[in-house]
Amino acid sequence: MSKVSHFGEHITIDGYGGDEKKLDSGKLLLFCLKDVAKKLKMHTIAAPQVRKVKGNGKKDPGGWSGIVLIMESHISIHTFPKRGFVSIDAYTCTNGLDRKKIVTYFKKAYSLKSMEVNFLLRGTRYPSKNIS
Amino acid sequence: MSKVSHFGEHITIDGYGGDEKKLDSGKLLLFCLKDVAKKLKMHTIAAPQVRKVKGNGKKDPGGWSGIVLIMESHISIHTFPKRGFVSIDAYTCTNGLDRKKIVTYFKKAYSLKSMEVNFLLRGTRYPSKNIS
Repeated sequence: MSKVSHFGEHITIDGYGGDEKKLDSGKLLLFCLKDVAKKLKMHTIAAPQVRKVKGNGKKDPGGWSGIVLIMESHISIHTFPKRGFVSIDAYTCTNGLDRKKIVTYFKKAYSLKSMEVNFLLRGTRYPSKNIS
Repeated sequence: MSKVSHFGEHITIDGYGGDEKKLDSGKLLLFCLKDVAKKLKMHTIAAPQVRKVKGNGKKDPGGWSGIVLIMESHISIHTFPKRGFVSIDAYTCTNGLDRKKIVTYFKKAYSLKSMEVNFLLRGTRYPSKNIS
């Protein structure tokens, strides 16, 4: 059997009490996607996609969604200005993700009052060698 | 204090022992993104992005990456044909995600031998009303 190691690391951040104006800025969202990728030394493989979302008038009051593909992983941000809420994923295929740095970055970027953070090891049985 | 409920549901699937040819198909990846969104009755808000990734000759032997933005959430797929590996995220803002359906779908789509599945509730303190 070939040696295995985990493939990647994934942090999810759900932030509360954020600044409405910041959360309602597509420009800031785009900046964050690019800036975080740069700070974490990730290699983007496609232009970021950012869209304004109308909402459904019920649970979803609308906001901005953005995503950027990086080498075999991604960063995504979904904002809900009217609820002061933002939902973020940073998934990297490098090991040793600086979680504190990412959490601090987004806390500041959106002036979040509190956050829920999950950390997942992805592909814990990722084969270390090609299988064919 | 206003009522709170969880914002969304997020399933991650890391699959092993998949079919190399299927994993190496950008066409299949694109089909899966669209088909899963449709089956889960998600509303896409941008065209899916799919890219062939070169890899780094080390941990990452290359593959395909794809993502689609849906109403305030997303679906992503990253494949590594030479390792028989695929890493999938389906994040929805609806409650009651049919996890079994999604897992079964991808098991079949990529002929996976085994899978690691994580399930996250996102935004468990999501405010049920607008804050301003």
